[in-house]
Amino acid sequence: MESVRQKIRGYDYGDPALAHSVVSMSELALLKESAQFTDKDASYLLLAGDVLECKVKEIVSMWRSDIIASIPHLARHSRDLQGNPLPGYLSASSLRFEQWILDVCRRPYDQQWLDYQQENALRHTSVRKNRTDSVQSTDHLPLRDIIAFVAVMDRSIRPFLTVQGHSESLVEAMHAAWQKSLQIHIAIWTKVYMSVEGQTQSW
Amino acid sequence: MESVRQKIRGYDYGDPALAHSVVSMSELALLKESAQFTDKDASYLLLAGDVLECKVKEIVSMWRSDIIASIPHLARHSRDLQGNPLPGYLSASSLRFEQWILDVCRRPYDQQWLDYQQENALRHTSVRKNRTDSVQSTDHLPLRDIIAFVAVMDRSIRPFLTVQGHSESLVEAMHAAWQKSLQIHIAIWTKVYMSVEGQTQSW
Repeated sequence: MESVRQKIRGYDYGDPALAHSVVSMSELALLKESAQFTDKDASYLLLAGDVLECKVKEIVSMWRSDIIASIPHLARHSRDLQGNPLPGYLSASSLRFEQWILDVCRRPYDQQWLDYQQENALRHTSVRKNRTDSVQSTDHLPLRDIIAFVAVMDRSIRPFLTVQGHSESLVEAMHAAWQKSLQIHIAIWTKVYMSVEGQTQSW
Repeated sequence: MESVRQKIRGYDYGDPALAHSVVSMSELALLKESAQFTDKDASYLLLAGDVLECKVKEIVSMWRSDIIASIPHLARHSRDLQGNPLPGYLSASSLRFEQWILDVCRRPYDQQWLDYQQENALRHTSVRKNRTDSVQSTDHLPLRDIIAFVAVMDRSIRPFLTVQGHSESLVEAMHAAWQKSLQIHIAIWTKVYMSVEGQTQSW
């Protein structure tokens, strides 16, 4: 996926300069157990990756243009401080958002993956928001809104999982794996947010 | 529901002695928006409450006996420090767990509800775990495991939502409302955990 990294601005997955995650591989293993995420789920996510590959643009557009754009306290995070659109920011971060969907599905959840989760989470906190794209926007994206929006990101993915005509039980298996993974992501992001100075401010 | 409160040990919902939540009603309103939780969802949860009412014992038993009990790092939180069962703790907290399902569905999400979310979250942190039932058990239940386990609590509720023969679209509507509510709960709990001294310890 090296070529992908070169094509998407700021997509630094696997960059050896990234900091080591505050979440350890053994904590991740326990988290998977808590969510009942197994190797089977990893396989279903691989299948989901094939199903979603041609749909990621449509999915991110639905999330950002149809939903987030209509919720002012969410929309402002990709606008400037006067509320004006930042088209360059929006397009670069949408490409990273699209790639994130594929990473959820296809990347092995190893140390490199953990490290990039942390980088990604930090880019939503006051430590690093706006820097990747050199923009002036809100200081951080509150963790609470990410957690709440997961309900949307989980529910709205399902119709896209059906587009290749897989059986209802396979769609359900892919969807369950997706949901478990999102909760694991959120658990990891929560530690990163908690580790940031002034924790409850970033809530 | 006063009679319920008297019947379940430690179920202090609505107790005027409870502290005021660190999450405000206006923050809750925004959270609902972020999860796309509307008045319709509240109505679907009322319906879900009627459907689930006779099933809460079965549901909590599934979560605790079938799932949590088989995951050592989760099971230990309702055992003593030597790993022995604490039947009194388990039964009292299961009754509260069952009542929580009904509260998710039936309680208006008002200040009283917010305050009890905080009390409930605190009882899983080092501030107040074990005190309600005067037991010696783990110091706290890590937030990360609660977040991860939400995937289980969301997925596994669905078959129970079908037991009264409602249409697929109504079951889906009840389930979507349930999921949104769980994410809102987790967002609130996260602030409570973040507010506790030594935040990342309790992660």
